[in-house]
Amino acid sequence: MDKSHVIQMNGVHGNGVLTAGVRQVSVRGVLDPAKLKSRRQRSWGVRASEMSKNTLNPIRAIVDGMKLTPNPDKPMISLSIGDPTVFGNMPTDDKVLQAMKEAIDSQKYNGYAPSKMQHMIFHPDTQDVILTSGCSQAIELCINVLCNPGDNILVPCPGFSLYKTLAVSLGVQVKLYNLLPEKSWEVDLQHLESLIDSRTACLIVTNPSNPCGSVYSKEHLQNIISVASKHCIPILADEIYGDMVFPDCSFHPMAPLSSDVPILSCGGLAKRWLVPGWRMGWILIHDRNNVFGSEIREGLVKLSQRILGACTIVQGALESIFNNTPHEFYQSTVSFIKANSEICYSALSTVPGLTPVMPSGAMYLMVGIDMDNFPEFQNDVDFTERLVTEQSVFCLPATAFEYPDFFRVVVTVPEDMMMEACARIREFCARHYRPCSTDSNEIDQ
Amino acid sequence: MDKSHVIQMNGVHGNGVLTAGVRQVSVRGVLDPAKLKSRRQRSWGVRASEMSKNTLNPIRAIVDGMKLTPNPDKPMISLSIGDPTVFGNMPTDDKVLQAMKEAIDSQKYNGYAPSKMQHMIFHPDTQDVILTSGCSQAIELCINVLCNPGDNILVPCPGFSLYKTLAVSLGVQVKLYNLLPEKSWEVDLQHLESLIDSRTACLIVTNPSNPCGSVYSKEHLQNIISVASKHCIPILADEIYGDMVFPDCSFHPMAPLSSDVPILSCGGLAKRWLVPGWRMGWILIHDRNNVFGSEIREGLVKLSQRILGACTIVQGALESIFNNTPHEFYQSTVSFIKANSEICYSALSTVPGLTPVMPSGAMYLMVGIDMDNFPEFQNDVDFTERLVTEQSVFCLPATAFEYPDFFRVVVTVPEDMMMEACARIREFCARHYRPCSTDSNEIDQ
Repeated sequence: MDKSHVIQMNGVHGNGVLTAGVRQVSVRGVLDPAKLKSRRQRSWGVRASEMSKNTLNPIRAIVDGMKLTPNPDKPMISLSIGDPTVFGNMPTDDKVLQAMKEAIDSQKYNGYAPSKMQHMIFHPDTQDVILTSGCSQAIELCINVLCNPGDNILVPCPGFSLYKTLAVSLGVQVKLYNLLPEKSWEVDLQHLESLIDSRTACLIVTNPSNPCGSVYSKEHLQNIISVASKHCIPILADEIYGDMVFPDCSFHPMAPLSSDVPILSCGGLAKRWLVPGWRMGWILIHDRNNVFGSEIREGLVKLSQRILGACTIVQGALESIFNNTPHEFYQSTVSFIKANSEICYSALSTVPGLTPVMPSGAMYLMVGIDMDNFPEFQNDVDFTERLVTEQSVFCLPATAFEYPDFFRVVVTVPEDMMMEACARIREFCARHYRPCSTDSNEIDQ
Repeated sequence: MDKSHVIQMNGVHGNGVLTAGVRQVSVRGVLDPAKLKSRRQRSWGVRASEMSKNTLNPIRAIVDGMKLTPNPDKPMISLSIGDPTVFGNMPTDDKVLQAMKEAIDSQKYNGYAPSKMQHMIFHPDTQDVILTSGCSQAIELCINVLCNPGDNILVPCPGFSLYKTLAVSLGVQVKLYNLLPEKSWEVDLQHLESLIDSRTACLIVTNPSNPCGSVYSKEHLQNIISVASKHCIPILADEIYGDMVFPDCSFHPMAPLSSDVPILSCGGLAKRWLVPGWRMGWILIHDRNNVFGSEIREGLVKLSQRILGACTIVQGALESIFNNTPHEFYQSTVSFIKANSEICYSALSTVPGLTPVMPSGAMYLMVGIDMDNFPEFQNDVDFTERLVTEQSVFCLPATAFEYPDFFRVVVTVPEDMMMEACARIREFCARHYRPCSTDSNEIDQ
């Protein structure tokens, strides 16, 4: 390593150019032993920063570590990607496309635009809106403004992996609070509260949930707010799947339910309008008691102005998208997801060894694996890897959501694919299922 | 502050809901004095993070501190905003709009897209391309991957303020190297080299330059690379104004000139295609000697996947934008900027007390103020503030670029506005100019 530097000290450069100025400073360097020493130590070998090394994507880490070799006799069916557009069966509405084209033709949205809006198009109660590059940047800005290194945030388990990715790279600790599958993934409030300490900077609530597809009742949301209120913890409400709930169910935005807890509500066009690639997200600041004061608001604005996030064409189309997307579009999306969820749920609930949990919204369904009944497999990663090898069906192992012994099914795939996938999962389980000797006793209890 | 917490401990909640779980944990808390103490100390009063407080925008800080009250008798002319779209006189090309609309209609670009491309559309030599949310995010990712807190980066002075904004919020020190106005803003290579130490992580070169409008010769770029090579410092080449150079001048991308120094070249659609709001930027990784190894590449990919940046519609349109934008569009943009620069330069070079520096590209022109001749004004901020008060012309004081006693003129405004602004600047200077007693002597030397 030192060799290359020694060669350079002797004046051999790639292009042979050495200006007088460079020489002069070299001479001065000799007079400054500290500086000379520091220079001598330099050589090529550029290392990545700690921050980039600490940027970990658990999903990628797990998936990259899996041997995903499908069965050549069966076409691959991937139920793993949380992107409703991949199969082409869920296009966005024509009115959305039209709004975009009008924004383009107007030539009014080519320049920079403010990231802060005071916009009635969101909600009459909304005080401030920050537009971001997708809901991911919205979440990032909220964590960045609320947390210092050494603080901790409360994150649902199972939960979306981005929270941890962002927090860890900032030196912020993640404390996972349990969701209860037997209660349709409601929060274990007792466990949640036990995690709070003096460095808890924020409680993240994902409703509707990725990966669970659960939708909380008003009462349950009020109970969560009570815990936050008691301990004075602001809430980051990740509501990117807001309004994507089945017809027999209601979505309650968290903010109007709070009288004192300040809530940063994150959302975006991605899921409801089926355009995740457009990167249009937002933060709605709800702070009835002015707990945040000007500091958090100004902090969010400053952070959002570092790197302007949202494409102005989408910004320009936003009001028209909100106003002109026909109600039938949302209804048809939700009906499709519900129908597919029912297909998946009813197919898998009769498969010995599996315990699907019926969702109420979003676009996911979680399936528990009774690992004792599948002694061939060590865990959910092993199970889902072999499901690819034998049946060419890929579901994300829920270890990616810090929740082993489950897997997540994305229910936006075409219906026939959903049915075929479930049939193959059934075949796979039938082949590998082994009854446990104590099974009957356990069931009786 | 404690009061609210005491009230909460007594069970008075906004919504009156207290679950059994919450009560139970409260009781457990009493048994744990450390936890109880930490909880008792909590009260509302959410503070913004250190990072958000350390996110400083010098331009905004200076402009917000100025009293910008225009003369009511003269319509305001703003020569301050680096956005070529604000006056509507520089629309992008129809082919660019068409490419966007085709991307929309295809419905192929609604979903997530990879941020990493291996794309011949950029340059046959390009190894890796990372797509970002505008050139700003490109610069951010480069600084983030190369620098740890406590490192320093070398930044041109005068220079674009974002480098410092990003670095400071990361705990990275900025060392300013001088550009020489008398040499068309070439780098003071001797000064540059004197700043390098063992913690220097990166050299930023802006070519063509904001705010100077300078364009470096191949020889000068080679000299800069030599300094970087001697000390093993990677280069961040901010080339967002690449190819925006006047017809009598050539733009040389830095990367092909380097045989050993790894170069991260940052660019975007913003300026050349006149669509800064679309937020399409990129990093081209040039690393002929594989100095970066896999670490920096992987780090950049990981950082770019934290928050996906670029809107997929613009991504989808990119190849068509590159291939189909007529050459006349670029020519006409550059001819217009050159003509306006010449109007401004020739008008202001005959104004006593001002020293404009003729640019060769980009869309800016820097004007020196001989402050000794304007004893009424303390500095460039004072000077430009009064220019607004009296003449309703606003130019950004170059203190915003760490370069006092200059101001920056944006030369993308309509021609008649440019002429009117220059006439008003002349009138303003004529009113406030005071000859210095030693002037004639100094000129003779």
